[in-house]
Amino acid sequence: MKTINLAEKLATFASHWDPHVVADYNDNDVMVVKFKGEFPFHKHDATDDFFLVLEGEMLMDIEGEPSRTVKAGEMFIVPKGVVHRPRAEEEVKVLLIEPKGEPNSGDADREPAPKPRI
Amino acid sequence: MKTINLAEKLATFASHWDPHVVADYNDNDVMVVKFKGEFPFHKHDATDDFFLVLEGEMLMDIEGEPSRTVKAGEMFIVPKGVVHRPRAEEEVKVLLIEPKGEPNSGDADREPAPKPRI
Repeated sequence: MKTINLAEKLATFASHWDPHVVADYNDNDVMVVKFKGEFPFHKHDATDDFFLVLEGEMLMDIEGEPSRTVKAGEMFIVPKGVVHRPRAEEEVKVLLIEPKGEPNSGDADREPAPKPRI
Repeated sequence: MKTINLAEKLATFASHWDPHVVADYNDNDVMVVKFKGEFPFHKHDATDDFFLVLEGEMLMDIEGEPSRTVKAGEMFIVPKGVVHRPRAEEEVKVLLIEPKGEPNSGDADREPAPKPRI
């Protein structure tokens, strides 16, 4: 039970598309991540996908819809079942929340490794 | 499904201790709130309590432990069952996440009104 400084946590790693768990909220992982480039299109059948931009600017591409821009201090929730991909032209720092065990890609076979905790 | 600017949402109300729902994440309300002064000590028996400070500085008083300071860009999760109260000497703006229907005070009899959505 302690105060979690998100910038300090983000400063501990440099990798992209590599969420690090910083806290537990009920049965969810609260994570920080750095994005640059684009993630594969995917969906989560059983969970909404929570994004809060902490620094920089993210694009959220959504199948069949215009892309959305999400800047620092803005959040975006992708409802369950919606095909999407986050994308960033420059590095963006993001807070994610996902039920424990949910693979970021929506596909457990692609992501066998547990997320690191910092 | 749209980008949610938290500062814009916070600018729509002035009241303290009055969470406003800005989004749904699975069966949780994502809320913004302004605190000033102190909330009653309370606990949530069945849910962790999620706080992310967006602007300003919050104190988290915890029964039997030293108070914690939580500043902008910092988060604090109070595990279920832990007696606590948020407090702020100056106005602080906070993101909250709680399962739908959970009263902020942990006591449904004290909080019959549904939280407003903005």
